[in-house]
Amino acid sequence: MIPNLDETICAGATPSGFGAIGIVRLSGKDALSILQQVFVPFKKQTDFPKPRRIYFGTFQNGDHWIDELQTVYYKAPHSYTGEDMVEFFHHGSPFIQRKILETLIHHGARLAEPGEFTLRAFFHGKFDLIKAESINDLIFAEHEASHKIAMQQMRGYFSNRISQLRQKLIDLTALLEVEIDFSEEDIEFVDRQILIKTAKEIIKESQLLLDTFKTGNVLKNGIPVAIVGKPNVGKSTLLNRILNEDRAIVSDLPGTTRDYIEDMIYVQGLPLRFIDTAGIRHSEDAIEVVGINKTYEKAAEAEVILLMIEPVDAREEEISSQIEELKNKVPGFSEKKLILVLNKIDLMDELPSHWKKILDFETVFISAKRNENIDILLEKIVSFYQIQPSHLPDIILTNTRHVQAFQNIIKHLKEAIHLIELNSSQDLVSQQCRLAIHELGQITGEITNEDILDSIFSRFCIGK
Amino acid sequence: MIPNLDETICAGATPSGFGAIGIVRLSGKDALSILQQVFVPFKKQTDFPKPRRIYFGTFQNGDHWIDELQTVYYKAPHSYTGEDMVEFFHHGSPFIQRKILETLIHHGARLAEPGEFTLRAFFHGKFDLIKAESINDLIFAEHEASHKIAMQQMRGYFSNRISQLRQKLIDLTALLEVEIDFSEEDIEFVDRQILIKTAKEIIKESQLLLDTFKTGNVLKNGIPVAIVGKPNVGKSTLLNRILNEDRAIVSDLPGTTRDYIEDMIYVQGLPLRFIDTAGIRHSEDAIEVVGINKTYEKAAEAEVILLMIEPVDAREEEISSQIEELKNKVPGFSEKKLILVLNKIDLMDELPSHWKKILDFETVFISAKRNENIDILLEKIVSFYQIQPSHLPDIILTNTRHVQAFQNIIKHLKEAIHLIELNSSQDLVSQQCRLAIHELGQITGEITNEDILDSIFSRFCIGK
Repeated sequence: MIPNLDETICAGATPSGFGAIGIVRLSGKDALSILQQVFVPFKKQTDFPKPRRIYFGTFQNGDHWIDELQTVYYKAPHSYTGEDMVEFFHHGSPFIQRKILETLIHHGARLAEPGEFTLRAFFHGKFDLIKAESINDLIFAEHEASHKIAMQQMRGYFSNRISQLRQKLIDLTALLEVEIDFSEEDIEFVDRQILIKTAKEIIKESQLLLDTFKTGNVLKNGIPVAIVGKPNVGKSTLLNRILNEDRAIVSDLPGTTRDYIEDMIYVQGLPLRFIDTAGIRHSEDAIEVVGINKTYEKAAEAEVILLMIEPVDAREEEISSQIEELKNKVPGFSEKKLILVLNKIDLMDELPSHWKKILDFETVFISAKRNENIDILLEKIVSFYQIQPSHLPDIILTNTRHVQAFQNIIKHLKEAIHLIELNSSQDLVSQQCRLAIHELGQITGEITNEDILDSIFSRFCIGK
Repeated sequence: MIPNLDETICAGATPSGFGAIGIVRLSGKDALSILQQVFVPFKKQTDFPKPRRIYFGTFQNGDHWIDELQTVYYKAPHSYTGEDMVEFFHHGSPFIQRKILETLIHHGARLAEPGEFTLRAFFHGKFDLIKAESINDLIFAEHEASHKIAMQQMRGYFSNRISQLRQKLIDLTALLEVEIDFSEEDIEFVDRQILIKTAKEIIKESQLLLDTFKTGNVLKNGIPVAIVGKPNVGKSTLLNRILNEDRAIVSDLPGTTRDYIEDMIYVQGLPLRFIDTAGIRHSEDAIEVVGINKTYEKAAEAEVILLMIEPVDAREEEISSQIEELKNKVPGFSEKKLILVLNKIDLMDELPSHWKKILDFETVFISAKRNENIDILLEKIVSFYQIQPSHLPDIILTNTRHVQAFQNIIKHLKEAIHLIELNSSQDLVSQQCRLAIHELGQITGEITNEDILDSIFSRFCIGK
């Protein structure tokens, strides 16, 4: 998707539907001349169109009036795309938006691809790839934490840090390559210890950033919380309570929930992604066995596991045996992720405080049916996970593309250090440094290719 | 709903959802000072904010960055509402929109009621009620014809005509009232023949406008087309074909469609509103009888009636008897509205051309099942109704509020003429003229009351 910058593109930029105002954008070399053909300002103004100024008038296709609207012209390079651009603020009707687009296309524009405005902005050097990606993250941020991460990426914290690291490495590598030209004279332009120190510094920083990815990913996609337990213990009822909706089918038959159902809620600005699972029991039913195995898979992904117990099973040996089962079947299971949830307290005369003391787990007593203590459970989950939006680090990786780049950077720089220690020739060392520089450049988009651009911009909305 | 103009209001103005851009509007006396508290332009500009100029910067709530966005300030009275106004063009995320609104409210604004921006515009004399109504019509116009009507209303054709008629009547009535002061001197300031002529002229014009209402209403709500016929003749299958969707339940059991189902499609820019009905037959089932009676009711509203016949009934006496039944049961039935639709031609060896000649009706041969000749049927319906968007008169009534006003105007002016002819006193005549003037003023909103405003503006979207 390398854009043909000769073409002028247009698209609706607001969500579709009825509203007070809708926006159509136009960008490219013909934007100004098209504007002058389709728009007539109400007041004859000899300076029309002055850039960045709002004009009011009629939008028309020849003699056919489409709308009375406001428009603004941005002169290249001072626009979002870096090209000549026009925005039309029309009455928020899908019919009018369609007519406006038809008119622009009639006058030589074409419909934009998803993300094409931002892609053009990138091509015209308005911002780097990290910022382009952060714009999309920002639009789809649905809670405090992911909004904060996207804003910080957009404001360039991450880009600046990458550029600094890259520049440092470029300077050293350039000196190293000068040595190659003077190799017969055996002069060292670069102190090998400084080179190793710089490489180690970048490795360390890369590793720190990689460590943030788990947090970033969790904040982007929600903290996965699996609800497990024997059939009919009330898992679906609890999920319904939490989501306040009847998304899971609830019935009295054991084995009703064969598929897992996921959904997100926000507690104290943090996204929790709840995973309802098939009840864990021994089953002969082939479909149900698949469901139960999926339960273990899902539980393995979870950051928090709610093990639901009902009063009849509220005995130490029963609970221990269920936990043992999870340990055996759930890869990477840790007791640190576990919260015991004793459901159906409405059926009990008194709370079984005795076994709570015996087993050393966080325990919450609830009645899913009567909607009791669900709020306490949610607070417990959040405090358990311990990320607070206000205490996030400045840079957090949220993007698998960035993760891969940093993994490669670490690999190349470790190899470079290894080669230096072996006293290998400058060109072998410099080759590894160049590969690391290349990876750093791919993160910001200083170096890029069509596949990367495709995968980034195809996720954008039309009109962005 | 008389607005408190002291309050500053805010609302999202774009349809809700994810998109490239969303808009939040702010209007009222504090709009400028709130803007200065929440927005920091990127470039320090001493002239910020110059009206009607786009500025780029950060939107923040105290230290908390919400978005990087563009904003424009409109200085009263040169804004949509006639008040100080600000628009924020933010990244098109529902989360960000909510944060922006929360921030504005935190700084003293309140959420706007539906239509409150337009109501304020009306209160500040930016436009009359006809134009306010036309803006809403324009947003909800879904086809060429209704768009054209709304545009013409918005451009003031209708308002101007009403104002002219009203002014003429005011001038004459004022002279008439001068006569009252000089009544003892028996001077006629107004030639009674001119007064009668003017009244008749306004009556005639009112009647012409009233006559356009049927067209206007039909264009706004769709040309009602009823599909009638015996059970199982294929009515629901035809409707499905036309709507291209399975909205009606189709089964082989006679009497499946007990309720009527309506939907619109657009053919050549005209809206057709199809009405599927219960099959017409003699039934003992109480619910079905209700359905059949509803069929007759719906057929009475229709502008076009499609009488569906299947091959087995394609005989003159059978068709005549079905038409006779419609004549008896459907109030206002006219054969001019009727199109015979012979369905299931796939089951026939040859088309029964002989009976088409015997009966003098428009006839279309189709196979709903095989999707044959449906397009021919649609074209026939449109040509049958004979309104073309390009041949609409300049002013068309679409609004029951206007219809009632014109009916009253005619009543008062007829009474005035009657009084003049009886040689009644000036004050009786003038009273009727004043009532007519009042009605004309209510149409444009020169005279109004809370109920009228409520009923108009409550139909608007939030943010308009």
